Amino acid sequence: MTAIQLMQRSLLGLKGMDREEIESILSRAAYWEQQSVKVGDALAGRFVANMFFENSTRTRFSFEVAEKRLGAEVLNFSAAVSSVQKGESIYDTVRTLESMGIDAGVIRLKPAGVLQELAERIKVPLINAGDGNNEHPTQALLDMYTMRQQFGSLSGLSVSIIGDIKHSRVARSNLIGLREMGAKVSFCAPGNMRAGELDAPYIGIEEAIRADVVMMLRVQLERHEDGMIKSAEEYRQQYGLTVERAARIAPHAIIMHPAPVNRDVEIDGDLVEHPQSRIFPQMQNGVPVRMAVIERALRG
Amino acid sequence: MTAIQLMQRSLLGLKGMDREEIESILSRAAYWEQQSVKVGDALAGRFVANMFFENSTRTRFSFEVAEKRLGAEVLNFSAAVSSVQKGESIYDTVRTLESMGIDAGVIRLKPAGVLQELAERIKVPLINAGDGNNEHPTQALLDMYTMRQQFGSLSGLSVSIIGDIKHSRVARSNLIGLREMGAKVSFCAPGNMRAGELDAPYIGIEEAIRADVVMMLRVQLERHEDGMIKSAEEYRQQYGLTVERAARIAPHAIIMHPAPVNRDVEIDGDLVEHPQSRIFPQMQNGVPVRMAVIERALRG
Amino acid sequence: MTAIQLMQRSLLGLKGMDREEIESILSRAAYWEQQSVKVGDALAGRFVANMFFENSTRTRFSFEVAEKRLGAEVLNFSAAVSSVQKGESIYDTVRTLESMGIDAGVIRLKPAGVLQELAERIKVPLINAGDGNNEHPTQALLDMYTMRQQFGSLSGLSVSIIGDIKHSRVARSNLIGLREMGAKVSFCAPGNMRAGELDAPYIGIEEAIRADVVMMLRVQLERHEDGMIKSAEEYRQQYGLTVERAARIAPHAIIMHPAPVNRDVEIDGDLVEHPQSRIFPQMQNGVPVRMAVIERALRG
Repeated sequence: MTAIQLMQRSLLGLKGMDREEIESILSRAAYWEQQSVKVGDALAGRFVANMFFENSTRTRFSFEVAEKRLGAEVLNFSAAVSSVQKGESIYDTVRTLESMGIDAGVIRLKPAGVLQELAERIKVPLINAGDGNNEHPTQALLDMYTMRQQFGSLSGLSVSIIGDIKHSRVARSNLIGLREMGAKVSFCAPGNMRAGELDAPYIGIEEAIRADVVMMLRVQLERHEDGMIKSAEEYRQQYGLTVERAARIAPHAIIMHPAPVNRDVEIDGDLVEHPQSRIFPQMQNGVPVRMAVIERALRG
Repeated sequence: MTAIQLMQRSLLGLKGMDREEIESILSRAAYWEQQSVKVGDALAGRFVANMFFENSTRTRFSFEVAEKRLGAEVLNFSAAVSSVQKGESIYDTVRTLESMGIDAGVIRLKPAGVLQELAERIKVPLINAGDGNNEHPTQALLDMYTMRQQFGSLSGLSVSIIGDIKHSRVARSNLIGLREMGAKVSFCAPGNMRAGELDAPYIGIEEAIRADVVMMLRVQLERHEDGMIKSAEEYRQQYGLTVERAARIAPHAIIMHPAPVNRDVEIDGDLVEHPQSRIFPQMQNGVPVRMAVIERALRG
Repeated sequence: MTAIQLMQRSLLGLKGMDREEIESILSRAAYWEQQSVKVGDALAGRFVANMFFENSTRTRFSFEVAEKRLGAEVLNFSAAVSSVQKGESIYDTVRTLESMGIDAGVIRLKPAGVLQELAERIKVPLINAGDGNNEHPTQALLDMYTMRQQFGSLSGLSVSIIGDIKHSRVARSNLIGLREMGAKVSFCAPGNMRAGELDAPYIGIEEAIRADVVMMLRVQLERHEDGMIKSAEEYRQQYGLTVERAARIAPHAIIMHPAPVNRDVEIDGDLVEHPQSRIFPQMQNGVPVRMAVIERALRG
C-alpha cells in the first residue's frame, strides 16, 4: 500500500473529502443498515484496535459493535487504565499496537495536531474518533446520514448548531461536511463560545430554532468560568432548547444532539425523546456508518 | 414482543417468580452444566452488554463466561471508566446501548428503584446483576442450584443467613426464592444490621450454625460506624464463622458465601476451602445458571 | 493432569528450564510467525484469562492478540478496576476464575513469591506476565527470539544489560535464559541499581556498548531518591544510550529495550527507530512467542 492509498483509507477528518466520497460512505452505511445478519465475516481475521486516550463509553461501544458486526477481532484500550498522555508516548503506544499486527486503529485523543503526525508515521489506516477541538468525522457522517434519512437530500438544508462551538469538534466536522453537501450552516453561541476561525454566520437563538435541523451541542460550563454565563440555568434560559422554545420549531424540523446530553441545560429532559428528536436514532445510525468507515479502511 | 413478554424475559428479581419458573431455570442450568462443548452457537450473532455501574470483577466475569459459552458477542461497560452516576444518566446510557442494537443487557447499579423504571422504558430484556440493597436474583438462583445439588430438594431445608442483612441484596433474593421453594430461612445479625421490613425470624449465632445451610454474608464494617460492633475481630467473635464454631455445624450441612470473602472477619480463612464449604462450587455453578438466565432472556 | 505435568505446562520463570525446552518454544514461535492465516482455531472453545494485578497495556495486548490468533476466548481483568491487592485476595480471585472454567491464566502481579504459591494451589496452567522483581519469562523469550533472528545462534553472543538491574525482572529472566543458551551476559548499572544476588560481571558503559546486543532497561528514577543519580539528564549522561554513544556500537550489533521507553532518559528518542534498533521488532516477536507459550500451556 502506498502512503497516498493509506491516507485515503484513513479517516482523519472531513476536511478535503469531496461530496462523492461522502455520498459513497453514506450509501454503504445504508447497505449495512439493511443487512439482517447481525454478525458477518467481511473482516474475519482482521484486528481493529480501539485506542481511546480520552474516555468515551458511547463512541467506543459504537465502534466496537460496528467492528464485531463486520466479524473483526477487537482490542480495546482506554487511557484511564494507562499512563499514556503526551504526543511521543501516544506514538509509541500506537506504533506498538501496529507492531503487534493490528490492521486498523480507531483513535481518540486530546492533544491538537498529534493525529495528523501519527498518520504520517503509522502504516495502518487510522480512524479519528475525536481529536481535541479539531474534528470528529464519524459523528458528522452519522449526523448527515440521519439528516439524509429524514430529508432525502442535504442540498439546501438549513442547519443550526447551537452551543459551545469553540470547543466542539462535532461543530467543525459538521460545518465542513454539510457545506460540501450543499447545506447552509449557522452557528448560535454566546461570545465566549464562538470560534473566530470558522467561517459561518452567528445568529440569535430564536432564528436558530427555525432551521430544518436544530443541532444542540453539549455544554461544559466549567470550561467557561470567565464567561458571561454564570449558571446552567442561565445557559438554559439563553441558549437551551427548552420545551417552550421547542414549540416554535417547524413541524418538519428535527432536533439533534451528539450526546451525552446534559438534561435541562442545553436541552430539556422532556425533549430528548420528543417525536421530532433524532438523538437516539443518531446513535443507532452510528453503527452502520462506522461499519462503512471501518470497511473502507480495511478493504480500500 | 409485547411489554408483558418482555418483562417475562427480563430478570429483575425473584419477587413474583413462582416455583415452576425457578425449577425451569435450575433444570436448564443443569443441562448447560452437563454440556461438554464449551462454546456453542446458541446465541451466535446476538449482542449482550454487561453494564456495570457498580464494579464487580467476579459477577461480570461469570456473566461474560456464560455469554461467550452461548456464542454471544459481549460488550463490557464499567462505571469506573465512565462518568455515569445518576438515574437519568443511567437511562441515557442503557438507551444508547439499546439504540446500538444490543439484544439484552446485564446490569448492576446502586440507586434504588432505577432498575424497575429502566425495564419499563427499555425494549430489550434486562438481567439484574445486583441493584443496590434490593435484589441479586442470579446469585440466589446459583445458591439454590448449589443447595439442590447437595440436598436434591429445597423443600423443608433450613437455611441460616448470617451477617449484614440490612444491606444485602443476596439475603433479600435468597429469602424470596427459598421461601417459594419451601425452605425455612432464618436470619442472624446484630441489631444495626437487621432489616425490619423482611419477614423472617432472627436467631442467635449458635442456633444459626445448626442449619442445613450456613450462609455467611460479606460484612462491610465501615458502613456501621454507629453500631455496637467496634472492630473486625469483635464481629468475628460475635457473628463470624470461626474454625471453633464450624466444628459444631452438622456433618451433612454446607457452608456458603456469595464472595468475595473477608477472610478472618465473617469467615475464617481456613474454612473457605473446608470440605463442607461450597464457596468455590457456588462460583462454578454461577456460569450454567447465568447461561440459563441469558438464554431465557434471548430465546424466550 | 498430574501436578508435575501441570507445572510443566505453566511458565512461571526461565529458572530451571533447559536449553532444549527454550529451543522448542522459540521454534514453535517461528512456526506461528510464518502462518499467513491470522486467526486460527487451534484453541477454539478454550478460555484464557489475562489477570493483570499490575497494569500493562502493552503486555496485555500482546497476550490478547496471541490468544485471539489461536482462536481462544479471552477474558481481561485489570487491577485498576478492582480492589484486589494482597496475596490471599489474589488467590481468591484466581481461584474464582478457575472455578468459572478458565483453561489457563496469564498473570502479572507485584508481591514477591505469590505466583509460586498460586501455581501450587491452582489447577490450571499459569503464565507469568511479570511478577514483581522476580521474572518476566515471556519477555526474555521474545528477546532471545529477536537475537536468534539476528544472529542465528545465541551461543557465544555477548549481551550487555544496562540500567536498573536491581528492580528488573527482565534482567533476571534474560540472565537465566541467555546463560542457559550459552550467551555471555554483563550488567552495567550505578551502585544503587545493582543486584548483589545475581552472578554476572558489572562493566562500564563504554565497554557495555561494545557488546553484540546492547539492551537498555527502563529506569524509574523516583525509586532511587537516595541514589547518586540526581536527575534524568544526569542518568542519561552516565548510563543512557545517547546518539553520541550509539555511534560507537559495533556495526553488526543491535539495540534492544523491553519498552515502554523513557525517551531521552535511558535511550535517546532518535535511537528508538534507529536501523540497529530492534525495539519494535521485539514487540512484533512477542505475539508468536506468546502464541507458542499459550499453546504449550493448553495443549501440553
